[in-house]
Amino acid sequence: LAPSPTDPPFERVAILGLGVMGGSLARALAGLDDPPHVLGWSPNASERDAALEAGAVAEAPAGWHEAVAAAELVVLAAPLRACCDLLAGVAAVTPAVTTLSDVASLKAPLARAAAEAGVSDRWVGCHPMAGSERSGFEASRRDLYHGARVWTVASPAASSRADRVHALWRSVGARPEAIDAGAHDTLMARASHLPQLASNALASVLARAGVAPEQLGPGGRDATRLAGSDAGLWRDLFEHAAPELAHGLYALAGAAERIARLLDEGDLDGLEELMRSTRAWRQS
Amino acid sequence: LAPSPTDPPFERVAILGLGVMGGSLARALAGLDDPPHVLGWSPNASERDAALEAGAVAEAPAGWHEAVAAAELVVLAAPLRACCDLLAGVAAVTPAVTTLSDVASLKAPLARAAAEAGVSDRWVGCHPMAGSERSGFEASRRDLYHGARVWTVASPAASSRADRVHALWRSVGARPEAIDAGAHDTLMARASHLPQLASNALASVLARAGVAPEQLGPGGRDATRLAGSDAGLWRDLFEHAAPELAHGLYALAGAAERIARLLDEGDLDGLEELMRSTRAWRQS
Repeated sequence: LAPSPTDPPFERVAILGLGVMGGSLARALAGLDDPPHVLGWSPNASERDAALEAGAVAEAPAGWHEAVAAAELVVLAAPLRACCDLLAGVAAVTPAVTTLSDVASLKAPLARAAAEAGVSDRWVGCHPMAGSERSGFEASRRDLYHGARVWTVASPAASSRADRVHALWRSVGARPEAIDAGAHDTLMARASHLPQLASNALASVLARAGVAPEQLGPGGRDATRLAGSDAGLWRDLFEHAAPELAHGLYALAGAAERIARLLDEGDLDGLEELMRSTRAWRQS
Repeated sequence: LAPSPTDPPFERVAILGLGVMGGSLARALAGLDDPPHVLGWSPNASERDAALEAGAVAEAPAGWHEAVAAAELVVLAAPLRACCDLLAGVAAVTPAVTTLSDVASLKAPLARAAAEAGVSDRWVGCHPMAGSERSGFEASRRDLYHGARVWTVASPAASSRADRVHALWRSVGARPEAIDAGAHDTLMARASHLPQLASNALASVLARAGVAPEQLGPGGRDATRLAGSDAGLWRDLFEHAAPELAHGLYALAGAAERIARLLDEGDLDGLEELMRSTRAWRQS
């Protein structure tokens, strides 16, 4: 859907955080035919310089206050806790016309922060299902969001702002879809956080068994790719993780033990049935 | 290393099995500047036709006896049990000059089959660390082996044949390396079979929790990619799996449970330490 005349594209966008997520959004916007004026900020001066040099941002002031001053849209692209803190800070110094957004991986903590700051009517939380096990601006790329699902959370009072934010994501090739904050976080506990920790669990077993990463085939490399993710970024997420995450890990432990027992018992039919069912799921 | 004058390249190669592994080898050989004459055989007539049509093989006789009749090298590219059966069959009808090889994922069962058939002195077992969760000739590709490690197992009596087989793999861009059959199978239990079943375990948990594959992000998709593998191909492997595979799955169950407990207890330091250690391993 093209933006309607009442939903003009954002002409001035501030992105706070220039790592993989913020940097990739800046790069994608810079690549548009009619790009908005993007101001980027990072606490890290070398990242600000790199973003300027790459042409990803038009300006990169040293303080975020400057970046958000006249922005129509502010996108917070920091670790979860920093996003919550920044949301309160930015809410306090920007006028009601400024739309606030973020790309944090959990939405309920941000929805609470928006409510506490009294800006639920101008907050449109986003979570793009894209990223990298690497981090920092150097790992950002222009096409990161191409084809990616972007979950969005907004109160009814912010619905026309949500339309404009959806249009922005569509302009960079992403597929925005509205969801409830709680439903989102439950889904993520299973679809995102569980695969992450499953990969860590597998990697820890391989490491203890003395297997070197270079001894893995392509399948083993894929299965452990997430084990290379940045611990610092995930720490905050785990603090707010839905109980479904721990439940999922206990279920994974049960599944691994059942499979071990099938092997011990030489139950090849049971193993084949398991593989057939997961293959059917994977291809569904 | 270029083949020495005493190790001329194989000029007539028979490949029995035209799925991902055999089909990809045929395609790669067909793409060489000075390709050998390749005869391909599959029990599946449509696969033989497809390989002929793709120019991957020069001939595709309906029976494998015809394919191996004058071959200098016979490569078995079938599921494990079929490879063992074929090895005995091919050994019985080919002369001592014919080198026998295979690309099965376990090497001890093939080494036993070679010894029982009395052809240990002309068998060079191979296991390329490459493949696909898809199967059949349609999933084969010319560059599958490019850059891939290929483990090779051969008795001292077959060492000059092993040199020629190494040269063949190098010609298609692979990296052959000799290994002992037992050491290979133990390593594979951990580096290949364990990630496979860990992926099945994770997929089974996600399926039961009602997560659809399309709801996964790129990380979750990678972590469950192997869960789409063909059950039939793996069944034989699990019959011969080293005990290290079941041990690894019990260890995975323990690791998953420990992580669940860290979450339950809100032990963010413990979670961060785990992630830091697996990241260090992954990047080592």
